[in-house]
Amino acid sequence: MNLHRKPIPVQEAVERVMEHRKTGKIDKVDISESDQRILAEDILATHPIPPFDKSPYDGFALRSEDTINLSKENAGEFVVTETVGAGHLASQPLKKGEAVRIMTGAEIPDGADCVAMFEICQTFEMNGQSWMALKRPLEKGQNIIPKGSETSQEQCLVKAGTKVNPGVMALLATFGYSEVSVYRKPKIGIFATGTELLEVSEPLIPGKIRNSNAYMIVSQIERAGGEAYYYGKLVDDFDTCFEAVHNALAEVDVLITTGGVSVGDFDLMPAIYEKLEANVLFNKVAMRPGSVTTVAVADGKLLFGLSGNPSACYVGFELFTYPVIQSYLGREEVYHRRIQATLGNDFKKPNPFTRFVRGFIDYEEGKVVVKPAGIDKSAIVTSLALTDAFIMLPAGTRGFEKGATVEALLLDRPNGQEHF
Amino acid sequence: MNLHRKPIPVQEAVERVMEHRKTGKIDKVDISESDQRILAEDILATHPIPPFDKSPYDGFALRSEDTINLSKENAGEFVVTETVGAGHLASQPLKKGEAVRIMTGAEIPDGADCVAMFEICQTFEMNGQSWMALKRPLEKGQNIIPKGSETSQEQCLVKAGTKVNPGVMALLATFGYSEVSVYRKPKIGIFATGTELLEVSEPLIPGKIRNSNAYMIVSQIERAGGEAYYYGKLVDDFDTCFEAVHNALAEVDVLITTGGVSVGDFDLMPAIYEKLEANVLFNKVAMRPGSVTTVAVADGKLLFGLSGNPSACYVGFELFTYPVIQSYLGREEVYHRRIQATLGNDFKKPNPFTRFVRGFIDYEEGKVVVKPAGIDKSAIVTSLALTDAFIMLPAGTRGFEKGATVEALLLDRPNGQEHF
Repeated sequence: MNLHRKPIPVQEAVERVMEHRKTGKIDKVDISESDQRILAEDILATHPIPPFDKSPYDGFALRSEDTINLSKENAGEFVVTETVGAGHLASQPLKKGEAVRIMTGAEIPDGADCVAMFEICQTFEMNGQSWMALKRPLEKGQNIIPKGSETSQEQCLVKAGTKVNPGVMALLATFGYSEVSVYRKPKIGIFATGTELLEVSEPLIPGKIRNSNAYMIVSQIERAGGEAYYYGKLVDDFDTCFEAVHNALAEVDVLITTGGVSVGDFDLMPAIYEKLEANVLFNKVAMRPGSVTTVAVADGKLLFGLSGNPSACYVGFELFTYPVIQSYLGREEVYHRRIQATLGNDFKKPNPFTRFVRGFIDYEEGKVVVKPAGIDKSAIVTSLALTDAFIMLPAGTRGFEKGATVEALLLDRPNGQEHF
Repeated sequence: MNLHRKPIPVQEAVERVMEHRKTGKIDKVDISESDQRILAEDILATHPIPPFDKSPYDGFALRSEDTINLSKENAGEFVVTETVGAGHLASQPLKKGEAVRIMTGAEIPDGADCVAMFEICQTFEMNGQSWMALKRPLEKGQNIIPKGSETSQEQCLVKAGTKVNPGVMALLATFGYSEVSVYRKPKIGIFATGTELLEVSEPLIPGKIRNSNAYMIVSQIERAGGEAYYYGKLVDDFDTCFEAVHNALAEVDVLITTGGVSVGDFDLMPAIYEKLEANVLFNKVAMRPGSVTTVAVADGKLLFGLSGNPSACYVGFELFTYPVIQSYLGREEVYHRRIQATLGNDFKKPNPFTRFVRGFIDYEEGKVVVKPAGIDKSAIVTSLALTDAFIMLPAGTRGFEKGATVEALLLDRPNGQEHF
């Protein structure tokens, strides 16, 4: 066991992990199963929009040449031949002196090249025939949305790597994507370690605490777009542990363990890495919390040894595991979005190491404000519940005052950024 | 059919709808099924945190009175009786002159009242016995996290109405909530209307477009936390339509129709409301898009008649249906969060009515910037895909320039606000 661990900078740790990133497999799913999934194909306009010359108003479709010279003094009169609603077609081409009553969204009849809105037309009946009178000229193309004017055929509308949301869903339906290619969710296995851990349903007994990290990480994995498999708690016996980790590794894309990576007397993960002949990428990171985060590669698969401390575990996942999941999902913006924000409260602790403070985003008078979620002792327990951002405080600083400009990582935005 | 509709202000329309809000039923679910659900009970600390006096460091637990007068010149020597790891208990109370080797997170042995960190202790063996030497005094309570110092028993940690996220999940597990009360998702039915609509899998034919609103709304319902039931397309025949709407209404909490609410010749929803003896709350709203949005109440259930135009349909849902779903889910902050933001592009259209411009949020140098998603014609089709906010532009304005302060509604944040 290596007791003298050399801490590496966060940036370098992220880079070492991402050297082992992979892109996931692709599945074809029904459109109704595609919500919130990540597209594995560009979505193209399979036809122009609008797909035909379309009326934007209720009115009368006409030939513009029939309206030349019309004025208040010189009204034109048109025979109304038929009515065309959206989804219907005129039964015959429009001829000289004729008008077709047309509804919003309907296709312009052949022969017509403009639309007069209801508001500028007078209608009347004469000899059992509908007529329409117009007192002004119209130009060719007036009040017509030309075929293809909003989108031309084959134009790329949404790129692969985008998450499906209600608007993307509308595009998929519009362009007939009844089946769509999406990235398969990576399978992420989880083991909890620690003899002090009780199951959630067990009563509390002296010296023990309940296992909360496993449930927390399942939720983080699913928020990140992965598929979580909780394998339960590793027991104290080394051989049984090794067997369990070895078998799970064959079933998943990525394996996470929580706890067991410190240098305490009972921490067994380092020995398991050794027997797996895993390549340990790092076992100490110059950051707080989560400095004991360990990442190794065995059989080409990433093993994340996250801390047993809930906050350190949470931070380790979002910094190192989250971007790996995004890579499996074919995303370009694999990292959490990093923004500048105004610090909403004093944070006076000095930072000998880069610190990731649990915080939440707020908005005040056009500014983005980020507030630490657990600054006083009584909020330590609830701070993770409030967290939707990390405040990144650089090493070597002596704390920050309210109003200072700081960097924040946004944890629950659908869009991220390409570089850490 | 009422052709002379009186538009009412958005605020009043929202209030009329919300007079008919209801709170949903409550279900008990396993903790593993509770992710992203809305809590229907306050989460209390079922035990103090920490649940026992705990060591924050690896070190030696001692009696502080044994360390009085210790100094460089006057070292104290202690018999190390045993080692206690996290999750374990000392086998016997600590007596005068004794020390217990203790790991981070472990319970302080009875009799001990302070912890000396490894770094300030020397260890040695003598006569087959482990000893520890210390050269400074410790105070009573030093390096001990007292039982209950972070959270006292029965303290409310998370309130009912909160969405379960990874941090809330950690609290549920910590405090033994193996089952948890959550609000049942309201059932929201959807009908599409319009003879121009094709199914997604059908090839495009002249004059027709594919039905995209139903898929879009299913996604909006699920993002809002509801359960969507798509009943398909209403046919042209009135009696069949009426039967379908009437039957669906018996099965769902809320019913949405898209299209059929204009004053065009083929719009049939108004007649259906009449035959249902529905109370029409309004059928015109002073806003763009979505002015024809109609909301009615039949058999105590809300019927949302959203526009057939995709953008108007999207806006109508988020303004009027979204807060109703949040009410079913027992949330206090039922409305989308409204913030001040900087307009990221010119928007020069005059606003005779309140306008809800599809936009997306960005962050620039500590400021929240909101950009219209479909300002040029070619972006109209993709604007809904980019949308995660509405830019609210008040009626009676002549457009806005880049850099102006505007109000924006955030559509995909877990937290909202109590008042519209």
